[in-house]
Amino acid sequence: MANSLLLLSLSLSFLFLFHGCVAQLELQQQRYWQSLQQHQQHRLRAKTECQVQQLTARQPSSRLQSEAGVTEFWDANNEEFQCAGIEFVRHTIQPRGLLLPYYTNAPQLVYIVRGSGIQGTVIPGCAETYESESGVGSTGEEEGRQRTDRHQKLRRFRRGDVLALREGVTHWAYNDGDTPIISVSIRDVANEANQLDLKFRKFFLAGNPQTAQFQGQQEREQQPRGEGRRGQEEGQGTSNIFNGFNEEFLAESFNTDPQLIRKLQSREDNRGIIVRAERPLRLVLPEYGREEQQRQREQGRGGGYMNGLEETICSLRIRENIEHTAATHSYNPRGGRISTINSQTLPILSQLRLSAEKGVLYRNGITAPHWSTNSHSALYVTRGSARIQVVGHKGRSVLNEEVNEGQLVVVPQNFALAIRAGEQGFEYVTFRTNDNAMKSELAGRLSAIRAMPDEVVMNAFGVSREDARNLKYNRDEATVFSPGGRTGGYA
Amino acid sequence: MANSLLLLSLSLSFLFLFHGCVAQLELQQQRYWQSLQQHQQHRLRAKTECQVQQLTARQPSSRLQSEAGVTEFWDANNEEFQCAGIEFVRHTIQPRGLLLPYYTNAPQLVYIVRGSGIQGTVIPGCAETYESESGVGSTGEEEGRQRTDRHQKLRRFRRGDVLALREGVTHWAYNDGDTPIISVSIRDVANEANQLDLKFRKFFLAGNPQTAQFQGQQEREQQPRGEGRRGQEEGQGTSNIFNGFNEEFLAESFNTDPQLIRKLQSREDNRGIIVRAERPLRLVLPEYGREEQQRQREQGRGGGYMNGLEETICSLRIRENIEHTAATHSYNPRGGRISTINSQTLPILSQLRLSAEKGVLYRNGITAPHWSTNSHSALYVTRGSARIQVVGHKGRSVLNEEVNEGQLVVVPQNFALAIRAGEQGFEYVTFRTNDNAMKSELAGRLSAIRAMPDEVVMNAFGVSREDARNLKYNRDEATVFSPGGRTGGYA
Amino acid sequence: MANSLLLLSLSLSFLFLFHGCVAQLELQQQRYWQSLQQHQQHRLRAKTECQVQQLTARQPSSRLQSEAGVTEFWDANNEEFQCAGIEFVRHTIQPRGLLLPYYTNAPQLVYIVRGSGIQGTVIPGCAETYESESGVGSTGEEEGRQRTDRHQKLRRFRRGDVLALREGVTHWAYNDGDTPIISVSIRDVANEANQLDLKFRKFFLAGNPQTAQFQGQQEREQQPRGEGRRGQEEGQGTSNIFNGFNEEFLAESFNTDPQLIRKLQSREDNRGIIVRAERPLRLVLPEYGREEQQRQREQGRGGGYMNGLEETICSLRIRENIEHTAATHSYNPRGGRISTINSQTLPILSQLRLSAEKGVLYRNGITAPHWSTNSHSALYVTRGSARIQVVGHKGRSVLNEEVNEGQLVVVPQNFALAIRAGEQGFEYVTFRTNDNAMKSELAGRLSAIRAMPDEVVMNAFGVSREDARNLKYNRDEATVFSPGGRTGGYA
Repeated sequence: MANSLLLLSLSLSFLFLFHGCVAQLELQQQRYWQSLQQHQQHRLRAKTECQVQQLTARQPSSRLQSEAGVTEFWDANNEEFQCAGIEFVRHTIQPRGLLLPYYTNAPQLVYIVRGSGIQGTVIPGCAETYESESGVGSTGEEEGRQRTDRHQKLRRFRRGDVLALREGVTHWAYNDGDTPIISVSIRDVANEANQLDLKFRKFFLAGNPQTAQFQGQQEREQQPRGEGRRGQEEGQGTSNIFNGFNEEFLAESFNTDPQLIRKLQSREDNRGIIVRAERPLRLVLPEYGREEQQRQREQGRGGGYMNGLEETICSLRIRENIEHTAATHSYNPRGGRISTINSQTLPILSQLRLSAEKGVLYRNGITAPHWSTNSHSALYVTRGSARIQVVGHKGRSVLNEEVNEGQLVVVPQNFALAIRAGEQGFEYVTFRTNDNAMKSELAGRLSAIRAMPDEVVMNAFGVSREDARNLKYNRDEATVFSPGGRTGGYA
Repeated sequence: MANSLLLLSLSLSFLFLFHGCVAQLELQQQRYWQSLQQHQQHRLRAKTECQVQQLTARQPSSRLQSEAGVTEFWDANNEEFQCAGIEFVRHTIQPRGLLLPYYTNAPQLVYIVRGSGIQGTVIPGCAETYESESGVGSTGEEEGRQRTDRHQKLRRFRRGDVLALREGVTHWAYNDGDTPIISVSIRDVANEANQLDLKFRKFFLAGNPQTAQFQGQQEREQQPRGEGRRGQEEGQGTSNIFNGFNEEFLAESFNTDPQLIRKLQSREDNRGIIVRAERPLRLVLPEYGREEQQRQREQGRGGGYMNGLEETICSLRIRENIEHTAATHSYNPRGGRISTINSQTLPILSQLRLSAEKGVLYRNGITAPHWSTNSHSALYVTRGSARIQVVGHKGRSVLNEEVNEGQLVVVPQNFALAIRAGEQGFEYVTFRTNDNAMKSELAGRLSAIRAMPDEVVMNAFGVSREDARNLKYNRDEATVFSPGGRTGGYA
Repeated sequence: MANSLLLLSLSLSFLFLFHGCVAQLELQQQRYWQSLQQHQQHRLRAKTECQVQQLTARQPSSRLQSEAGVTEFWDANNEEFQCAGIEFVRHTIQPRGLLLPYYTNAPQLVYIVRGSGIQGTVIPGCAETYESESGVGSTGEEEGRQRTDRHQKLRRFRRGDVLALREGVTHWAYNDGDTPIISVSIRDVANEANQLDLKFRKFFLAGNPQTAQFQGQQEREQQPRGEGRRGQEEGQGTSNIFNGFNEEFLAESFNTDPQLIRKLQSREDNRGIIVRAERPLRLVLPEYGREEQQRQREQGRGGGYMNGLEETICSLRIRENIEHTAATHSYNPRGGRISTINSQTLPILSQLRLSAEKGVLYRNGITAPHWSTNSHSALYVTRGSARIQVVGHKGRSVLNEEVNEGQLVVVPQNFALAIRAGEQGFEYVTFRTNDNAMKSELAGRLSAIRAMPDEVVMNAFGVSREDARNLKYNRDEATVFSPGGRTGGYA
């Protein structure tokens, strides 16, 4: 008796949970639409005709080995990358590794798979009002100049963070932890912010990139057009931009002697693009948690998320932890959870026009088959394995395989996708080429079929009213389904 | 005496009418400019060089025959279609015909040439709060589940309506009338909302499109690039998207048995993309007029047109009747009338970035020669015939022919166009690739020449002051001219 | 003693000046970022891959000689023009010369190098409420019609003005001064407002452009693709748009006789596209200074720059003098000055999505090496000479030469640029393909290096703390540097 009461109470709780969850979903979807009304996505296409007949879960195809880290590149010459107008890369930065300062022609969205570190973004015109500890054993001369080291704001990052890196401004990163940092990045070359061409370009402010060691996992012959592969392209023959200027001119510009300019040009540097700091950098900035608290207090005052204009530009938030986002958008205690970072949770994304989704599926958990109505998707597997099915134009299967940790699947806009986690569960991060990407689902509580009148479903599929209702109501969950059937069902 | 007084009074009335009309025109133009300031058009171009040497009034070149209707396609491989980045199609839906649910990679604007029906647009996340009558003779089991059929909002449409269909979301339509529905649609593949490529793609949620019968009016040989024609492309080899998924996976997702999934996949369906309902659908929704009244009351409260944000997303208006728009933009009692639907009259168009114009020219009525400053145009003839002249780059005539009902003329941005109705009058609908398309006229009250100082006109054309004033003032009408000369003239 | 006091006081003044200047710079940069948040740049690219290996300072390559002026064209077939998606032209209009009315498929930004005149922009729908003096010796008939000449607003322009000319609307210009007008214009074919293709197209409303005499400075053979050069293209075989219409149709439209229509079509005109007025035009409009005062009063009331919406459309400001902009953005009394016109100072630029910068460098003055984060640049030399260095992708020098008056350098987005004026100083105007173009500097007070912590600089370049601080602080000026070193330095 007590048992069945407990069961009833649990069931009711579940029902409540689901209904609350669904209401929340509807609210979110409405907010998406509202923000869609305010601005739209503008995108530049490389191709006038995309022939995506087959998708593949891909590994990186080449890598650059630097002194204190590795950069791994996915081959951007595949049809699905070119159609989506994106490139993709994975960085490993060893402890005390410094990713040298650079800028790019296209925005990047980065997900921190593992580790933690410090990130610097240099925004032209912002004041150097942040201070780090000065060097010990400073000479008298130095004391006379400045007691402390002044610089622009620094930011901590850690596992689960999404970092939004704007095109054209300078970025660097440093691993102040004990374990390697692993991050994956989408480089959105077809983004409207890139006025140049449909190729990702990196301009280095330091180092000697050509000394990084190129390792291609495929042979050169496979590239008939003679294009260098990514990685090869990025390293080979590349110097930092100071190299292209006349030495005397730089000496005059920096008001210093030519010997120091040669250091700036780094011609004799052979450390590649990720270098090892001689000793740990002493950079002073608040702990990760304290930054977080401060921001939340600020949000509290504003009564919600701040919009982009309220934040001052020089302290603009470029980071959000997708694992701990207050609003986990879909949660099914028996299936898994999906959370999203878009321009509503991280306003700078309205400029980058990108967003990200993190999914955690439990054993055999399922995502509702769905399509993205307004973006391409790049899904990177962070843990476990799953069977992924993608259906393209003309109702043809273009992918149906088991994908594993470290693989990437690019899914074009409108193509339908479904995931079924393996026995060990499945985790992924998906980058989307729209800052308010929207999904439309094919089954479950939010499906298009459920939204249609019974008699439309009956005539469309030639089924009885009962079967139409089975299709509409048998799966009452949304977005994330629990494995097997008859769970949360209508009957 | 009485006669001449009457004549004078009539003349004064006309003068007043014209001046009122002109003032209204100026106001409208100003509103266009204001809204142009708020957002601009972003468009993706298929071609880096357009060689439009000759335009042609075209008929559809191929068709798909389904059980309860026909889809006719204009050949999108012509230079002017590719330059404009559009495709064009005409649907005929028989009574009780159901156009099966689908979504597309590009927005569509539809004009209802004839007939009336019901339209469903499924917006992800909106509630199923609308109810239709449940089936008669429902079994006890059904009663136990749900008394009524719940679904998302439905909308009536009828002759003269313009429907705005967003990319990526699911649409279907049903003919509940006694006569066939005939509609024409522009499919805006170069629209920025389409991130895929410059080809229109339709994804079906039901049916078996490949069973629709393809009939090409041109021979295959004419397409050296081996591309399938539209229509052929859309039907041939196309299944609904459920086909591409694994049957067992779908059974699990829908929590139902595999047999029903096979119905969902519709492999044995041979009805094409427009199917006949077994018996008339019982869909409950307000009469056309009552919806209209309700909306007008809402507008009355707002004191004018609502802007997009005031409307709730889930009841967002996607329809406007162009024949009965309150603001007929130009009316000349002896020439005809032109009315426009843009993002000011139908806010969703600010997302679709399309607009439409309906013209009715009386016998021998004339449109002022003009060019569209910020859009391409696709003019479809709904009734009668006219001589159309189009002047392109370098002042060359690119079209000068009589066009008839059912023909389509695509006019590139900046090309100058003039229409002179035949003896039976002329009616057309023009779709434009800008939600606030603006025209600049070459003759009459709103002409560029009239806006220039006399002495500029005199020196530009090498004419006397008198002739300059003739060019500026002899035709005092705007936009729609009455036939012949000396009517409403200045002298 | 007095001397050293004076020196001290001067030094302090300098310090103050510099600090004030820097603070102002930071404020400006912040304002840029804020406006960047509100709208972004959308641009259409001609090429999927840009191979800019070498830039060249270029002269015009062809010209069209008209009766009262010359049009000189830069060859748009070069890689850097095609990558940037722009064309460039220089006009010379003799006194009493009238540049005939035309419209274009792309916006233009014009800089007046020399002379002064009157400009007309015809905005469809704006009233003809401006009046010019009627002709002397008017006949009785004329008096009976209208006492004065009515037309749309006219605008004066003079040396140093930047004029923003929208696509699709009609423009003309007249030289009412005693000296030739010389102007240079960027034609932004890749602008999103141009839906047509990536070629600049001009549609004439008057004249007979094909009678302008084409003179190419290069031989035809150099163009293997058989494309006509700009200029040749623009003149050859080109008539005004009235030519393409049927004569009788135009007579009916203008309600006038065919003989006058033939004048309109200008087939026998042989004056080219800039014609000489028979006698000076009597156009009545306020003096340049008085317009200016009126505008400044208006601004005073608003307490700053007006935004675009407050201005009425028909009197929308399309002109701003870059030489006398209140906010000269960077001033170094020993180096020179740089001022900018963007959408904050000239709101219409938010529609054109273009901006301009004027630079005056004194003898041996230097611009900080910098890159444009969000735009391409087209730098035209208005006076003097300088050595210009540009560094491209991979840190390679793509330009390092002395450039002189009348030459043009196109610098792609993200490419780094530095200028060192010659002995006679250097003046230039730079057009940018973003209405809020932003620069990031490589040396000096606003440099990316200064914004980084000492220890990052130390490890990036492998230098001592002292050298890191030399790189960060030795040049304390921003944007414009004085020649030589040790000036305003930190030490």
